[in-house]
Amino acid sequence: MKGFVHGGYAGNEGLALRDELNEKSPSNGEVKIKLKASGLNHRDLFIPDRHDASEPDVVLGSDGAGIVIEVGSEVKDVKVGDHVVINPGLGWRENSAIPPEGFQIVGFPGDGTFAETIVVPAENAVLKPESLSFEEAAVIGLAGLTAFRALFTRGQLKSDQTVFIPGIGGGVATFLLQFAKAAGARVIVSSRSEEKREAALKLGAHKALSNDEDWAKVAENEHVNLVIESVGAATFNRSLSLLKRGGTLVIFGSSTGDSIDFDLRSFFYGQYNLLGSTMGSAEEFNEMIEFVANHSIKPVIDETYSLNEIEKAFKHLSDANQFGKLAVSI
Amino acid sequence: MKGFVHGGYAGNEGLALRDELNEKSPSNGEVKIKLKASGLNHRDLFIPDRHDASEPDVVLGSDGAGIVIEVGSEVKDVKVGDHVVINPGLGWRENSAIPPEGFQIVGFPGDGTFAETIVVPAENAVLKPESLSFEEAAVIGLAGLTAFRALFTRGQLKSDQTVFIPGIGGGVATFLLQFAKAAGARVIVSSRSEEKREAALKLGAHKALSNDEDWAKVAENEHVNLVIESVGAATFNRSLSLLKRGGTLVIFGSSTGDSIDFDLRSFFYGQYNLLGSTMGSAEEFNEMIEFVANHSIKPVIDETYSLNEIEKAFKHLSDANQFGKLAVSI
Repeated sequence: MKGFVHGGYAGNEGLALRDELNEKSPSNGEVKIKLKASGLNHRDLFIPDRHDASEPDVVLGSDGAGIVIEVGSEVKDVKVGDHVVINPGLGWRENSAIPPEGFQIVGFPGDGTFAETIVVPAENAVLKPESLSFEEAAVIGLAGLTAFRALFTRGQLKSDQTVFIPGIGGGVATFLLQFAKAAGARVIVSSRSEEKREAALKLGAHKALSNDEDWAKVAENEHVNLVIESVGAATFNRSLSLLKRGGTLVIFGSSTGDSIDFDLRSFFYGQYNLLGSTMGSAEEFNEMIEFVANHSIKPVIDETYSLNEIEKAFKHLSDANQFGKLAVSI
Repeated sequence: MKGFVHGGYAGNEGLALRDELNEKSPSNGEVKIKLKASGLNHRDLFIPDRHDASEPDVVLGSDGAGIVIEVGSEVKDVKVGDHVVINPGLGWRENSAIPPEGFQIVGFPGDGTFAETIVVPAENAVLKPESLSFEEAAVIGLAGLTAFRALFTRGQLKSDQTVFIPGIGGGVATFLLQFAKAAGARVIVSSRSEEKREAALKLGAHKALSNDEDWAKVAENEHVNLVIESVGAATFNRSLSLLKRGGTLVIFGSSTGDSIDFDLRSFFYGQYNLLGSTMGSAEEFNEMIEFVANHSIKPVIDETYSLNEIEKAFKHLSDANQFGKLAVSI
């Protein structure tokens, strides 16, 4: 089968679209899925530096949706012909503070979704909402799960609250905006790009902050209940300044840098909560898919590539100028 | 009456023990207490710099215990002759993320407990457990409440957990150790003073860390579930390194400095919780007094001074070499 793999050479030189990959068969409790679409994540960009090129090649990709074409023994809840979306978390079932020992993510170290077929545990094949195309379902996985855990499990967002999402535009941030709106909350976003600010306002954001002046106005007039941070060094302390005393900042990324100066005294006097978050459990994934279906949420896809164009899609993602997700049709 | 006041001159020059202070009478809903003892807190040391010397003199002191000698109208639950301990928080009733508008602490801006009598709202006069002397009851207030909120409301300590308390010796830290032990938890402390480490071990600490090597051993072998920080810059990042992934660090002080370098990435990958805390509500105060009575906890008093010796007590507190609380007999 065809697939986009890493191996043979270190770093990006080891990336290649191959035609001759072996297909696998499902073992006990596994299912084989004919992939119809997959989605890109920043995680994919980091695998070439994390995968030891002397190890066997690995198919990249964490997100995918497709049709079940074979089921292993002892599989009960999934059957051939089911249209499914893949939960990219392997081995994290019930919700918990951290994933259990042995937890992995689809697409390294095991084979991923940038291929014509994939074999995953049956519990990772979740029925696709009928309201979504394969492409729309495929791009939800990792980003939607990360957004859902940050906003609801960790951030405990309530419908009467205001949430601030700095750096709108990326996949998770766009789901954060859609999920928070669907939950009835008021959403403020920020971006240095006028195009992204406008897209966010169209998607239901109440305000889109551009410059220091905008931030200062919010800090003065309408402190927010919850901040979901993934920008990191460039915004962290400013994000904190928008937060109501007693409020919560959930952080799941730090794309502009990890290291900040942090003032302990203003933090404890304000009785703030700073909560680290990552992608989540199967329990959260299933709730999230139900939430997406119930609220008729349509994932925002910036552009869809064919599997043959996947290197262009990688380039697009690393340029970081998209609004929403990048999908791959297979 | 006699009392220890600040006024007339800025800073510590404005501190004076006076004989000719006017006593107040209880208004609607208030009670007048003949103070038998009070307790010192670091907060007392900061008031001379916070109180504008051109304003009326203020009696210092947040903690006290004594006998009710007069009750205002509409007071139902407190009667003359009751032996009471004072909840130092004014206007914070039910537990909440932050205190309500108008919240104050006894002993600035209103008059405090380093005097022969005080008038407080009846709801702030809580029946003293019979197991405690007036001195023991007096020193609990602010420190016990801060420890209780940090450990239980914020830290959600469970009996099967291990809690780390850096910088054992101060009033709050000593209550933290006693409360956590009483709750059935395993307690690790640290101090650079051998004397304090030994005192903590006698009080039930499982381990008392001295140097970098001790800290490294705990980090390697037995990460803790909960850290309660008040040391600040000198220990914060090392404290975090002892914490289990998914664990919680509650911070209510930063005595060695407020500003730290903070690594966002290791924080969110670890899915840690960093929670700011302060003193607490009346609800927590009442639970805390009940907890102290039920577990027969005896507050640790390093030294007891008479009201005439209060300047010596202030000097003792600012030297920061005590283990436990400093009391004043009145």
